[in-house]
Amino acid sequence: MTAFKAPLRDMRFAMHEVLNTTAHYQNLGRDDLTAEIIDAVLEEGAKFNEGVVAPLNRSGDEEGIVFKNGEIKTPEGFIDAYQQFCDNGWASMTGSEDFGGQGLPLSLAAPFHEMMMAANLSFRVYSGLTEGAVLALTKHGSDELKTGYLPKLISGEWAGTMCLTEPHAGTDLALLRTKAEPQADGSYAVSGTKIFISGGEQDMSSNIVHLVLARLPDAPAGVKGISLFLVPKFLPDTNGDPGERNPAVCGSVEHKMGIKAAATCVMNFDNAKGWLIGQENRGLACMFTMMNDARFQVGLQGLGIAEMAYQGAVEYALDRLQSRSLSGPKNPDKVADPIIVHPDVRRMLLTQKTLVEGCRLLAYEAAQALDNEEHHPDSDVRKTAGVRAALLIPVVKSFLTDMSAEAANLGMQVYGGHGFIREWGMEQLVRDGRITQIYEGTNGIQALDLLRRKVMGDQGLELARLQDEIDAFCEANDLSEGLRSTIASLNSVNAHWRKLAKDIIARGTENPEDIGGCATDFLSFSSYALLAYGWARMAVVAKQKLEEGAGDSDFYNAKIASARFYIERILPRAEMHRQVLETPVDTLFGLTAEQFVRT
Amino acid sequence: MTAFKAPLRDMRFAMHEVLNTTAHYQNLGRDDLTAEIIDAVLEEGAKFNEGVVAPLNRSGDEEGIVFKNGEIKTPEGFIDAYQQFCDNGWASMTGSEDFGGQGLPLSLAAPFHEMMMAANLSFRVYSGLTEGAVLALTKHGSDELKTGYLPKLISGEWAGTMCLTEPHAGTDLALLRTKAEPQADGSYAVSGTKIFISGGEQDMSSNIVHLVLARLPDAPAGVKGISLFLVPKFLPDTNGDPGERNPAVCGSVEHKMGIKAAATCVMNFDNAKGWLIGQENRGLACMFTMMNDARFQVGLQGLGIAEMAYQGAVEYALDRLQSRSLSGPKNPDKVADPIIVHPDVRRMLLTQKTLVEGCRLLAYEAAQALDNEEHHPDSDVRKTAGVRAALLIPVVKSFLTDMSAEAANLGMQVYGGHGFIREWGMEQLVRDGRITQIYEGTNGIQALDLLRRKVMGDQGLELARLQDEIDAFCEANDLSEGLRSTIASLNSVNAHWRKLAKDIIARGTENPEDIGGCATDFLSFSSYALLAYGWARMAVVAKQKLEEGAGDSDFYNAKIASARFYIERILPRAEMHRQVLETPVDTLFGLTAEQFVRT
Repeated sequence: MTAFKAPLRDMRFAMHEVLNTTAHYQNLGRDDLTAEIIDAVLEEGAKFNEGVVAPLNRSGDEEGIVFKNGEIKTPEGFIDAYQQFCDNGWASMTGSEDFGGQGLPLSLAAPFHEMMMAANLSFRVYSGLTEGAVLALTKHGSDELKTGYLPKLISGEWAGTMCLTEPHAGTDLALLRTKAEPQADGSYAVSGTKIFISGGEQDMSSNIVHLVLARLPDAPAGVKGISLFLVPKFLPDTNGDPGERNPAVCGSVEHKMGIKAAATCVMNFDNAKGWLIGQENRGLACMFTMMNDARFQVGLQGLGIAEMAYQGAVEYALDRLQSRSLSGPKNPDKVADPIIVHPDVRRMLLTQKTLVEGCRLLAYEAAQALDNEEHHPDSDVRKTAGVRAALLIPVVKSFLTDMSAEAANLGMQVYGGHGFIREWGMEQLVRDGRITQIYEGTNGIQALDLLRRKVMGDQGLELARLQDEIDAFCEANDLSEGLRSTIASLNSVNAHWRKLAKDIIARGTENPEDIGGCATDFLSFSSYALLAYGWARMAVVAKQKLEEGAGDSDFYNAKIASARFYIERILPRAEMHRQVLETPVDTLFGLTAEQFVRT
Repeated sequence: MTAFKAPLRDMRFAMHEVLNTTAHYQNLGRDDLTAEIIDAVLEEGAKFNEGVVAPLNRSGDEEGIVFKNGEIKTPEGFIDAYQQFCDNGWASMTGSEDFGGQGLPLSLAAPFHEMMMAANLSFRVYSGLTEGAVLALTKHGSDELKTGYLPKLISGEWAGTMCLTEPHAGTDLALLRTKAEPQADGSYAVSGTKIFISGGEQDMSSNIVHLVLARLPDAPAGVKGISLFLVPKFLPDTNGDPGERNPAVCGSVEHKMGIKAAATCVMNFDNAKGWLIGQENRGLACMFTMMNDARFQVGLQGLGIAEMAYQGAVEYALDRLQSRSLSGPKNPDKVADPIIVHPDVRRMLLTQKTLVEGCRLLAYEAAQALDNEEHHPDSDVRKTAGVRAALLIPVVKSFLTDMSAEAANLGMQVYGGHGFIREWGMEQLVRDGRITQIYEGTNGIQALDLLRRKVMGDQGLELARLQDEIDAFCEANDLSEGLRSTIASLNSVNAHWRKLAKDIIARGTENPEDIGGCATDFLSFSSYALLAYGWARMAVVAKQKLEEGAGDSDFYNAKIASARFYIERILPRAEMHRQVLETPVDTLFGLTAEQFVRT
């Protein structure tokens, strides 16, 4: 089994050389976050994830969780690793300094989280939603709730969950039925059943704080009658420590395809005491603060799984001797050549590599937009950045997880029969990563979010801004020797993107079914276009570095060769999606519901 | 969980209405195989697989196999179901009548096998390789071996395995080390370790007959020094019944991602007594008889899994109420619309449906070629059919399994979060089906087989014959009202296919790396082109039936609408592969092996 190695060189390339992260932090007034500090965070993060988190991944999968009498036993080693995660300050990276956090920008935490997801996705699930709960509480909670809960949530002493889904209400939260009755003391009695609650119960934190969507007795129907409540597992006592047990109990756990070391709970709230977060009937808005963070995080999960699959595939491809190169032995002293000589194996590795590295840049760039939205001193910049982040998040969530499934399956395929065997670890990546395409809003829902809310929502304005940036980049670089065809391809895909967006906005305005019928292909097209932009930028930077004689020419030459691979062999997928988008959506409605059924 | 329903209407459409199976059987001299007989076989097969085999699928996955002291306990119910499989004559369908078989053409067994794979892939694994062993023995075995083994293998009383892979020798059989020492009595002492042996040990048949590749002491190195041996678990006694235990023993079993009810064994041969099949050092040729059958069967496995995923997705999409249609409520009396109203859900269902039905036709057509190769009275036809079958088999093996992974994952996606939960059955399809892209030669190897052996092997002659047939079909039908754009698209993809094949043959002759670099995309392109041909034919037949007023207009209209969906929304994938194939393969060699490694 391949040991996880944090891809530090590529992370630094994206952060320092392409995205100029120190200048970005200076704009946020964070001169203290120097290149040395950033690198130290990356290196310490690598040590922790390689040394503590990754070794628990296989054993966690084999052992799984044990559920008994409403309690969960996490796999051997999880409690200790979680304690280290808190003690070393990894839990509190982005939390507000007012409540004991380190106040670091999300973009500095993101590479750490990516590593953690590559190392052990199940383990990360337990802490991931705490950060979202912190965000929601920081933004929407009363001072009393903040004081009582934020310090312990930020330190990781307590964990958070996100309780949305009910058996009959997943994508469609309008249908949810959990009730909250106001009590004389200003609290609420919350009753109902929530499903698919990640970390709804566990043995790693001393308390669990559930953020629960529920309806007040007089609430209007639909999504406008949903409020958000904080419901702790243990009610804080007078010292603020875990006191009386609240009837918010794990009723059962799901048996799943993957992330078996993560507890996915059915939570029963039976007149559990809770407190309102934000305004009555505005719970969905509060929850969306959390959801945006969660969606970004799920994108990183996809990235982490894909990175790990790539590393595993490369190791095996270098090690496994099988058959001779088609152009003659490359390893004549051994019985066969390593399979990395075979073009079809290289096709798989380069597909993984270019998807992973392109997606990494995209994720880090989205993180910078989220940084600006949160921390930039200029309110106009904050606003603009928020719009950009809103546009990018559905792409990050869905494309990074779709590409993750592809990368994980390619990794498995490189291993041949051994890929299907548990001990090699590749099949776990396929199983664990598969949930990322589903949770926090299926990828189909992300596509609708992108096209309907984000693109149609402002009549394509923000998308056009992004496309203008791409055009400006092309113009500034189109004479770049050796990269002309790359820039030309980017220019062309960007022009197609503009036209598609314009056409689809017109079609969708006319006929709403066109929005649903175009959403997934439009998201895919947009993603491949964005990655082309990323690869063109990476190639330009790499070329500059080579021209400057910056050293590390193996790395930069590999970037340029990878960019060419992406443009020539991956980008044609965008053209396929364009062809589909240019057909009428009535092909989707050619069959009645009954005509789908087998007879 | 969705109960499996054999897709009899679609099977009959493919067999009777498109492929004219009774006429095909008449050409084989099998006037006895009337439409009524065919339908009776399908219906009885449906009853058995729906009623006996399918109900053991989930429980088999949960229970798995138990390995202890070299023995395997299969899941509850498997022994009894296998007994029924034998007693009802399903085991002996294709076996020679000379040895107690029913001598039925493969194309009549194929739909039954497809059902079985849809119902329970693990269960099918145990019997699937017996049929291959019967074939190899029938073609290459001595009379003594045939008499001693075939009757019991054909009845299913004994089972067969295929022992090729060794730890260091998977794709590259040249490396295999298992030895066979000639003994004074004419037998051989076989010693070595084989891995990934499906059904290498089990408790359902009273004996297991291993077909083992091994080397004679003086054998030349490489694939020209491999011979095939028959090594039974129990040596037949003087009555031909299982006697002395042969030291061919299961040493351990693999822990796998899926097909957990199928035993995948490490087999240790320790001077086990065996007999030569065929000539010395010609083992690979004998094994290929078995392998071709196995590869066709694996394609059917993919088809079965995809069919089941489609059925599950349709059932859920009709049942699950979530959100309203974008064009207004379709189900105003209920709290929400069934998700089948949403265009993105329809995109997923139609992708599954058109891939499954297109692949079914392709598989049944390949089966007819195999029938002709085996049973046609005219030796020229037998030869021509063999060449056609050889061309189609790598496509059937790889494309049907790749599309199966897509269909299974789409099925899971339709279920949202429930897709990831074991009890709904969708995740099992993803896990079980995943092996089909790997075993019996990975899909990358199939692509090489298609391009290198089959297409380059005869300089594209047989492929051109197939393309001529497509052109002739287009010419005969291009004025077909309502289908003009379908026929035009087929015509266009066929023209591209011709040109691609010609160009790639030229490139591959010049530079062998071009073969490896083009193989997978060429196979994919070819597959989508073949499915376009299939869909055009299905649409033409459906249109004729409607014009004839044959009734069942819902079915035929759905076929025509599905054809349009395939052409407009799936076939653009071929264009993508064409674009990739037109780029130079040197992009695959832009990185040294070391440049892939993370730093």
